[in-house]
Amino acid sequence: MKKTFTLAFLSIAAFAQAQQTTISGFSSASAEKELQYEKQFDQSLSAKRIGETIKQLSAYPHHLGSPGGKAVADAILAKYKSYGLDAHIETYNVLFPTPKTRVLEMTGPTPYTAILKEPALAEDATSGQDGQLPTYNAWSADGDVTGQLVFVNYGLPDDYDQLQKMGVDVKGKIVIAKYGRSWRGIKPKVAYEHGAIGCIIYSDPKDDGFTQGDVYPKGAYKGEYGVQRGSVLDMVIYPGDPLTPYVGATKDAKRLDRSEAPTILKIPVLPISYHDALPFLTALEGQVAPADWRGGLPITYHIGPGKTTVHLKLTFNWDMVPCYDVIAKIKGSKYPDEWVLRGNHHDAWVNGASDPISGQSAMLDEAKAMGDLLKTGWKPKRTIVFCSWDGEEPSLIGSTEYAEDHAKELQQKAVVYINSDSNGRGFLGAEGSHALEGFMTEIEQAVTDPQTKVSVYERAKARDLVNASSVKAKKEIMDRKNVRLGALGSGSDYSGFLQHLGITTLDLGFGGEDPSGDYHSIYDSYDSYSRFKDHDFEYGPALASVAGRATLRMANADVLPFDFRSLYSTIAKYGSEVKELADQMRESTAMNNSLIKSNQFGLSYDPDKHLPQPEIKSEVPTIDFGPLTSALESLKQSTDKLSTEWEQAAQSGKDQDALNQKLYRAEQQLLSAEGLPRRPWFKHTIYAPGFYTGYGVKTLPGIRESIEQRNWIELKQQIDVAAKSITQLATYLSPPAP
Amino acid sequence: MKKTFTLAFLSIAAFAQAQQTTISGFSSASAEKELQYEKQFDQSLSAKRIGETIKQLSAYPHHLGSPGGKAVADAILAKYKSYGLDAHIETYNVLFPTPKTRVLEMTGPTPYTAILKEPALAEDATSGQDGQLPTYNAWSADGDVTGQLVFVNYGLPDDYDQLQKMGVDVKGKIVIAKYGRSWRGIKPKVAYEHGAIGCIIYSDPKDDGFTQGDVYPKGAYKGEYGVQRGSVLDMVIYPGDPLTPYVGATKDAKRLDRSEAPTILKIPVLPISYHDALPFLTALEGQVAPADWRGGLPITYHIGPGKTTVHLKLTFNWDMVPCYDVIAKIKGSKYPDEWVLRGNHHDAWVNGASDPISGQSAMLDEAKAMGDLLKTGWKPKRTIVFCSWDGEEPSLIGSTEYAEDHAKELQQKAVVYINSDSNGRGFLGAEGSHALEGFMTEIEQAVTDPQTKVSVYERAKARDLVNASSVKAKKEIMDRKNVRLGALGSGSDYSGFLQHLGITTLDLGFGGEDPSGDYHSIYDSYDSYSRFKDHDFEYGPALASVAGRATLRMANADVLPFDFRSLYSTIAKYGSEVKELADQMRESTAMNNSLIKSNQFGLSYDPDKHLPQPEIKSEVPTIDFGPLTSALESLKQSTDKLSTEWEQAAQSGKDQDALNQKLYRAEQQLLSAEGLPRRPWFKHTIYAPGFYTGYGVKTLPGIRESIEQRNWIELKQQIDVAAKSITQLATYLSPPAP
Repeated sequence: MKKTFTLAFLSIAAFAQAQQTTISGFSSASAEKELQYEKQFDQSLSAKRIGETIKQLSAYPHHLGSPGGKAVADAILAKYKSYGLDAHIETYNVLFPTPKTRVLEMTGPTPYTAILKEPALAEDATSGQDGQLPTYNAWSADGDVTGQLVFVNYGLPDDYDQLQKMGVDVKGKIVIAKYGRSWRGIKPKVAYEHGAIGCIIYSDPKDDGFTQGDVYPKGAYKGEYGVQRGSVLDMVIYPGDPLTPYVGATKDAKRLDRSEAPTILKIPVLPISYHDALPFLTALEGQVAPADWRGGLPITYHIGPGKTTVHLKLTFNWDMVPCYDVIAKIKGSKYPDEWVLRGNHHDAWVNGASDPISGQSAMLDEAKAMGDLLKTGWKPKRTIVFCSWDGEEPSLIGSTEYAEDHAKELQQKAVVYINSDSNGRGFLGAEGSHALEGFMTEIEQAVTDPQTKVSVYERAKARDLVNASSVKAKKEIMDRKNVRLGALGSGSDYSGFLQHLGITTLDLGFGGEDPSGDYHSIYDSYDSYSRFKDHDFEYGPALASVAGRATLRMANADVLPFDFRSLYSTIAKYGSEVKELADQMRESTAMNNSLIKSNQFGLSYDPDKHLPQPEIKSEVPTIDFGPLTSALESLKQSTDKLSTEWEQAAQSGKDQDALNQKLYRAEQQLLSAEGLPRRPWFKHTIYAPGFYTGYGVKTLPGIRESIEQRNWIELKQQIDVAAKSITQLATYLSPPAP
Repeated sequence: MKKTFTLAFLSIAAFAQAQQTTISGFSSASAEKELQYEKQFDQSLSAKRIGETIKQLSAYPHHLGSPGGKAVADAILAKYKSYGLDAHIETYNVLFPTPKTRVLEMTGPTPYTAILKEPALAEDATSGQDGQLPTYNAWSADGDVTGQLVFVNYGLPDDYDQLQKMGVDVKGKIVIAKYGRSWRGIKPKVAYEHGAIGCIIYSDPKDDGFTQGDVYPKGAYKGEYGVQRGSVLDMVIYPGDPLTPYVGATKDAKRLDRSEAPTILKIPVLPISYHDALPFLTALEGQVAPADWRGGLPITYHIGPGKTTVHLKLTFNWDMVPCYDVIAKIKGSKYPDEWVLRGNHHDAWVNGASDPISGQSAMLDEAKAMGDLLKTGWKPKRTIVFCSWDGEEPSLIGSTEYAEDHAKELQQKAVVYINSDSNGRGFLGAEGSHALEGFMTEIEQAVTDPQTKVSVYERAKARDLVNASSVKAKKEIMDRKNVRLGALGSGSDYSGFLQHLGITTLDLGFGGEDPSGDYHSIYDSYDSYSRFKDHDFEYGPALASVAGRATLRMANADVLPFDFRSLYSTIAKYGSEVKELADQMRESTAMNNSLIKSNQFGLSYDPDKHLPQPEIKSEVPTIDFGPLTSALESLKQSTDKLSTEWEQAAQSGKDQDALNQKLYRAEQQLLSAEGLPRRPWFKHTIYAPGFYTGYGVKTLPGIRESIEQRNWIELKQQIDVAAKSITQLATYLSPPAP
């Protein structure tokens, strides 16, 4: 066994040390040229310049619709133009609420009025500027409510199951939830579903405050007064402007009335600091919170309800504002109508040095480096499109409106959409469409980690090896040839491309050694970024080198480097997972119902607490996954055959126009016309943000969520829907009969 | 599958509802009489009287050597006599240190002098009494040390491994450790092994303070000033008086000089409240503590060392004090020289309403109920010996000295030793020798839980079913016929009997719904016990009913109800565990060494932190467990055969003197003459307190600890030692050839 390990390491090391000379999808001659261009590209990148760009673009608050936002868009436009790119701004007109009134007070047992304000710090040069958005959650309802308070942990469905077990109901009450574990918008939505009339979200120090490390400005973590702003739009229904689903929010677009927009929250919701949360939580009575609900404050966490009552009053300016997407193109020399898109947003909640300016600045350096290449006479085969999006923070508005507005053109022309957002020091994180695993492996092996000087591939693999919990898991990682791309949920600008249009997508960024409590606060500043996130800005060029390489290789490949065998094996794994999920749920439901009926729960509880019995749940029927299994079998056969065809094409040296078009439009076959249940905008049958997780992905979402929601009729339908789309892809990919 | 569950429940329910009519080891006629006596016994028990006894015996501080301690011993003696038992006090003369000087101060960066005092509370009537022992750890060294402070989590060997990974050394420093996760004496011992010159132990609110629930007197948990006293003797070498290992501490016993006593600590050690710990922890600098090290205080936990320096000065009165064991007998009518021992200590750190008076009071009610039976003419076949031990808190002194003093007689006469200690509301916990699993199952099915009115067997099983983490685990619990007895480590008065003399042992007590932060503090009082531990004292009679039944059945059985098949299957399970432990360690060592050699750890670490590489560990050789496997095979054969013999004897109705003697002395065959490595007092080859866990048991300790300590030479020896004792038992139990 030991010998095997040693050999495995030798082979990794040997691979990394050898100079890369071949690239999938490139002939030997093309590869030689491409590698030369990539070398020049890397040499153009500059950590210093990226640092300066971060400083420049985060110098003032620049949220959607603000003067600072317009200034940032204009600055980016000017940069693209100065690099020699063909750039312009596309403007959409979108709804964006900002606060008019914010009142949160404890009306009993002791009065307290929340301060709702992040103070300026001497150590943070931009923290005292004018023009900052107050602390709030965009898309909260206007409201003026008073009620008893209940602590609901992270405010997720499981937490309400736990409350039910403890006999606590939130109907007519105001809930207080911790930030974390899900996209924030899930918390007020689930609270509303359970009858709550208001929702407070606070940052517990256990999650991103003093429990995690020293707080700002001594360290990077969130201090006593730090508040996370953020959107609570019901983005899992559809992202983008709530008034213009499915269409671009152009000046003349047909709009919903605001009262009809299904993604706007129905109850008032407000984020607060733990300084403001502490008096409320201290006053709470009732049962002690379960062990895993307790945070880092020096109190006994109780659940309520009791004498603690809360008054929450919120009103908003529901304004229409311009949304400025900056688009810059480098026209393809051979296939101008095949587009490689590369995007990152530019709007921030406040100054946003990290989110999004760190990623934006790296992307701008990619554009600069390509501009330098252009000056040497280089031209990409395919068109490269840089997209600096506006309005990502409120609800992925700029990217979604662009995707909806240009839907038809994009489905014809877009080869891939490569996204990034915040960037920091550490390990490369790469997620996306699984046909690109081989492609990304080659890129990660070609880019050097700035601090350790090994490839970013080796560095991430070392972390995975060290962190893997078992020897078996470590061996699997050693034996793995390709990187694993995580599946995409939501939370950044790829949703419109991937989940609505079926365009192959990547999402890239470094992190893991960039501790953070500044997220969406006034302290996400240049001062904090340059101290705690990427002190020498070295991971800026690293991201530019990875994402730029991905862009260049896609733009220049002879045969597009899609390998659908990886997609097949990944979907097959998801298929096994959902089958196992159903089997486990069947077993555990039968067991639990049996334990409930025989009063085992009653006997196990503390008799002094008088807890209710758990509820009997519907038994899980036997489920026929046959259609899914057959569809996967077809996909396996056709992807195996396709890979033979692909190899032949790559070796032929001939133009592969038809094959290439087939490859890059393939992912669209995985869309279903009807979309997901209750959210038809989401059409991808393999990846979606979870209805109750938000950012967190659900793979085979129609099937998985039907099981989780115990909807057995819908499950049967969704097995058919997924099977149909997979079969569709299998048929589409099948080479023509010989 | 569902049907199976239902049937399983029906059978449990049916069993529980049926009146018990047979008892293992009793003929039908004997069983009928026995059950009648047990019914009378139960009727004599009184929750009200137990509550009164708790109030009486916890009315004043009564630690070893104190006037209150003498008064409690006298009161217990008087009770036994008043019940009609033949009672006397056996006095030993033992070393017992109490504090003379206690100084703990921070000398830098900011001065702080620890207050080292638990305040009296108006809500707790006895909390302001004179005669309380100050907060201290008995068997700390005298010392006067000053040094930098290092936070070491729980102060266990794994924590020092983690410190090494972080490049932190405690040599010449003072450490601060949290209470919990191990017996407290392990913490200063391991600190000393790593070169520390002093040790502070504090109670973190995450473990038994406000994080867990409301603090005393509002709730049961430990408040800001609560301190856990306790022994830090190196009890895993040997318990009892440190000056008289192996022999009773009689007046004329040969004694070690104190300086030679190996169990007395080498460095000063002091327990403190979190109020006193907070200034020190707040001042600490250096790296942030790993996530699972952080407690509940509202600070960022750092490890140090840094500018924080500590001065710790401790001196003690090293006095010889009398230790009063109260012994009460009921002479056996048929086998006066076969003893059933039932014990619970009576000394406390302060008032000790819970620890130990709740258990002591239940035991006294057993004696009272047996006294009542005696008055009706009943007599046990075997002699019953009640033992109210003194000096348990400092180091199991009273019981250990008694066991050593009467070693030879006990090994001849003792059928079983039945121990209890604190008692509270909730579920029965039963641990002990595995030949008694069938015996305990019958008893647990016969005793009713006072709050739910099902048997204590059903109640504990319900909890196990509900808490089991998987359907598979739940099914195993359903299918299990007998209760599982946990293996005994240490921490109460059974060690001398079980681990030194090889006497079959049980340890019993209720708990789980008796929240607690009062342990070893002045707040372990009648006021706190009657509010939070067992409000109506109902679990006093429940314990008396379980332990009394165990005593009565052992005293009256025709054929002693030992079933060594359970012992065999349990040891076989331990055998599989140690083999798997070695295999896993072999695999993980090879893997980790390989990862270290190829610099995977280095690449996975944050380059900014400059962490050292982990150390290469010795590879695990192939280990021959053959001798253990063969010994287990012999034991299986002989226990199977013995059970046939047992069945025939039980049905014969004849006297079974020889068989009974063989049965009750069998466990002594599992002793090894040489004892465990580096601690020859511990002679049991199957159960021992862990060398680095203290209370926590190590099963097959010689083998398991050799593996854990990577001592491959000793491992081979210890496999032979265990195999020899198991073979010895197998031969001993084999029925004579026909």
